[in-house]
Amino acid sequence: MSRYTHLADFDQLAGMLAVASRDLCPVIRRASAALLEVDAEAGRTVRAEVAVARELHDRIDGSVPAVLARRQPVASDLRLIVAGLRMNGDMRRMGALAGHIAGVALARYPEPALPAQVRPTFVAMADAAARLADKAALVLATRDRVDAIQAGLDDDVLDALQRSLFTKLTDDWPYGIPAAVDVAMLGRYYERFADHAVGVARQVAYLVLGSR
Amino acid sequence: MSRYTHLADFDQLAGMLAVASRDLCPVIRRASAALLEVDAEAGRTVRAEVAVARELHDRIDGSVPAVLARRQPVASDLRLIVAGLRMNGDMRRMGALAGHIAGVALARYPEPALPAQVRPTFVAMADAAARLADKAALVLATRDRVDAIQAGLDDDVLDALQRSLFTKLTDDWPYGIPAAVDVAMLGRYYERFADHAVGVARQVAYLVLGSR
Repeated sequence: MSRYTHLADFDQLAGMLAVASRDLCPVIRRASAALLEVDAEAGRTVRAEVAVARELHDRIDGSVPAVLARRQPVASDLRLIVAGLRMNGDMRRMGALAGHIAGVALARYPEPALPAQVRPTFVAMADAAARLADKAALVLATRDRVDAIQAGLDDDVLDALQRSLFTKLTDDWPYGIPAAVDVAMLGRYYERFADHAVGVARQVAYLVLGSR
Repeated sequence: MSRYTHLADFDQLAGMLAVASRDLCPVIRRASAALLEVDAEAGRTVRAEVAVARELHDRIDGSVPAVLARRQPVASDLRLIVAGLRMNGDMRRMGALAGHIAGVALARYPEPALPAQVRPTFVAMADAAARLADKAALVLATRDRVDAIQAGLDDDVLDALQRSLFTKLTDDWPYGIPAAVDVAMLGRYYERFADHAVGVARQVAYLVLGSR
């Protein structure tokens, strides 16, 4: 194999990771639309998109041994591959969680899964989760402005929103048990999604800043 | 570096993975004891154990680039390293989830987090989760009898238990909203724990069977 082929392998892996992270941005937004706008079409689209994303995550995982074997990478390339596997695991979960959010919306359709009282909290959660997915994709695609992006990288907003949600799930909650369970699970899905998005971005930041 | 040192690196990584998976078995059992026996001491011990486990998971992740760089492994060794990183990610989540189970028990202490009606379901969940953790540890330590172990490797039991749990969380549920939310989250934690345990064992089975 020529050096050129090796580079192509490597670039392809980096490219697949960038595509995988970028593809998750519309997926989480559409999952939130399915939930917030009670849009079954959006929910079904998310399910299809998540299945496509999963194939890409499988291809990424599957390509790594071959890239390692052919390229025998060292130093920064090697860290990228190790980080890439970790990121891919995070992205796999992000896709699954977006699918779960859409799934709850679809299970309740045509009723809204969200009682009016908690809708504003989920609007804020959806926004924060989508922004974190954007940041993960941006930092992975550009490996640039990592300091600036890293500064705004935290899922504290989601943690705080989830905590405020759980304070509403008391015996005064007027919407019944199934809605309370849905709301608790949805809060958890957004919180986990955000945590994995931050994981992706932090891996890139670590790579870029660590190699300066 | 001598060949001997390289082998030591590699064995050390495999050893750390085996220890990490074995250590999770008492942790999930103790987390279940905290929950089922309303045992705060067990709950606090789990928290400490999870913190120790996390350090080992960090050391495993941290050791991989050096092992790869020094050993330039090929074929089966390389697959083991890639699989090892994935397993380590699974085990990291297993530890966190055991910690969440203990956390719910501690948050409700001295009250039981589980209403009597769902206790039998959680006894079964705890048993199934602990057995899957055992299988993951056994298969990772021995890389033996993989076919036999693989045959019994599924988290369908947990999925079915979780579904039966959710059918109880209707408006007829007599224990109030906070208990319903706890029960839903606990069901989710066990289901996710089992899923990750199966992930670990499947990675090993794939490696062993794939290399025959």
